[in-house]
Amino acid sequence: MLTFFIYYSLPPPLCLSMSGEFNLIEKYFVNRQTQRCDVLLAAGDDCALVEAPTGCSIAISTDTLVSGTHFLASANPAWVAHKALASNISDLAAMGATPAWVSFALTMPEIDETWLAPFCDSFFELADQYGIQLIGGDTTKGPLSLTLTVQGFVPKGEALRRDGAKEGDEIYVTGSLGDSKAGLDVILNPTNVGKPNAPVLEQRHYFSSPRVNVGEALRGIASAAIDISDGVVSDLGHILKRSSVGAEVEVERLPVSAELVEFVPRRELALQYALTSGEEYELCFTVPVCKREALSQALAGIDCPITRIGQINSSGQLNLTKDGQAISWQLSGYDHFNSN
Amino acid sequence: MLTFFIYYSLPPPLCLSMSGEFNLIEKYFVNRQTQRCDVLLAAGDDCALVEAPTGCSIAISTDTLVSGTHFLASANPAWVAHKALASNISDLAAMGATPAWVSFALTMPEIDETWLAPFCDSFFELADQYGIQLIGGDTTKGPLSLTLTVQGFVPKGEALRRDGAKEGDEIYVTGSLGDSKAGLDVILNPTNVGKPNAPVLEQRHYFSSPRVNVGEALRGIASAAIDISDGVVSDLGHILKRSSVGAEVEVERLPVSAELVEFVPRRELALQYALTSGEEYELCFTVPVCKREALSQALAGIDCPITRIGQINSSGQLNLTKDGQAISWQLSGYDHFNSN
Repeated sequence: MLTFFIYYSLPPPLCLSMSGEFNLIEKYFVNRQTQRCDVLLAAGDDCALVEAPTGCSIAISTDTLVSGTHFLASANPAWVAHKALASNISDLAAMGATPAWVSFALTMPEIDETWLAPFCDSFFELADQYGIQLIGGDTTKGPLSLTLTVQGFVPKGEALRRDGAKEGDEIYVTGSLGDSKAGLDVILNPTNVGKPNAPVLEQRHYFSSPRVNVGEALRGIASAAIDISDGVVSDLGHILKRSSVGAEVEVERLPVSAELVEFVPRRELALQYALTSGEEYELCFTVPVCKREALSQALAGIDCPITRIGQINSSGQLNLTKDGQAISWQLSGYDHFNSN
Repeated sequence: MLTFFIYYSLPPPLCLSMSGEFNLIEKYFVNRQTQRCDVLLAAGDDCALVEAPTGCSIAISTDTLVSGTHFLASANPAWVAHKALASNISDLAAMGATPAWVSFALTMPEIDETWLAPFCDSFFELADQYGIQLIGGDTTKGPLSLTLTVQGFVPKGEALRRDGAKEGDEIYVTGSLGDSKAGLDVILNPTNVGKPNAPVLEQRHYFSSPRVNVGEALRGIASAAIDISDGVVSDLGHILKRSSVGAEVEVERLPVSAELVEFVPRRELALQYALTSGEEYELCFTVPVCKREALSQALAGIDCPITRIGQINSSGQLNLTKDGQAISWQLSGYDHFNSN
């Protein structure tokens, strides 16, 4: 049964004593979101009922965030909500899909209004921004964790996949890289709090902006795409593997923020952060050289910097170069919270 | 990112040391399920890509099962898998939907092959039985819990909802009721293990058969439907509330198994179990009197008993009667594991 934000699934005699909690859940989750005309039924029945547009495929992504693994229990709930939903929307962006619906399963040890209120404000603010409607979910008692399933649409045959990169294609990334890893440094190690730009980098760790409009604009132009959740080395590696190609990345081209360079505080270290920083939720994509002009035109109206960082080749490997020379940096990994 | 059964989301240097676990996950989850032609991409990219049939709505349900709340940590993992997926399929059945896809998020404290192997065997056996394909998910480290999102199709306008019951409609249930609660008695209280039929009732708690073919057959016939997850009193109550009607249920009509009557061991107590037993995953539905014959014809080829248990009225209440007299039993609730 779709126990839609009924905190415990209990029988009538016990439900009566829980009515305050029913109201509480209703207060936070029901009827406060974007109302989409393709959602026929969003709550109060066994299932949600929705309709997909004709001529489109549906892109679907599921992510779980566990307290202590993906965020600290003490983290600002508004920031956790943003991170959870943004990371899922980013998966849609990486497929070139337009977001539509989200299902949300919340497990909590007990109902905590001081946590729920800011969490939901932030969740629905971001959902509204992307035109996403909450269509259902479940709430259960247990250790704090969130599982989201987002769905979106992409015209048939136009999804940006990982397996289409070809030799000679140029490799691009959106935004700048490395800030999320620096933010994690601040979160996990108090000695970093006093470093330059620590507060803004911490916030950037939580507050990515999923590149949905870039993903949509890349339909028919990019040959492959992925979002950067585990670091560009790792994620570009997925494209290379699925496309059976190699690549050269010129590390000096990697876009890094001035704030990051001040924080680390050497440019070379900032570039290393850029290579391995996860949970950036920027896009990494490949474009055939003949589509350079089309790319430029498609992104002309979108306020998002893109940077060419390298080129696909047939080597079967990912090689990093600096000033034309191969480099072999010992890259430290991006380890979320779970190995700390 | 859709970290499809990659146990920890780790960067390349650490991933290398996890390759055994990658293989492990691949071994248990990838390419062992039903392959549907409407699934364009099921793993290995940012999202799954699927296509819904034209002329259909999509029914979607999400359920979380938490260890200690919805099942005991010591429970047979094969049984847990069946219960988790069957309860979700049952939500589709209650809408008259035909199952299609499932996303599965698994959180585990550590990779445990002795748990995963029987869990997955059971999960995929049931998925195959209903033609369901696993299209994606997430695996994370943390306290044991499962979140499933199932999706299915129902012709536009034909979904069985909770809000269509009308005065005079007759109320039916599938199968027999009460066994699941008796099974829970066995699971939670060792003193019940020696009672008659304890093993078979324990197994019935876990091994429901979602009534998908009944739900499909009820399209255009039933005025309302729900699956029995919290007990028929509670779940029929949802229909009454959403339809703004009342009902009379003749308790002597409630279908109970011979095994249950022996277990409790009085018929009156068995009827009380039938009223409040949750997690039955039988259907409760209402049918206009004029469609009795159509109902009989629609279910003629389906091996599932149905029983008429009462009638919708305009009272706005659910009244229980026995031999034509109102009764006021003190019903003990169905309390899953979480309040024990």
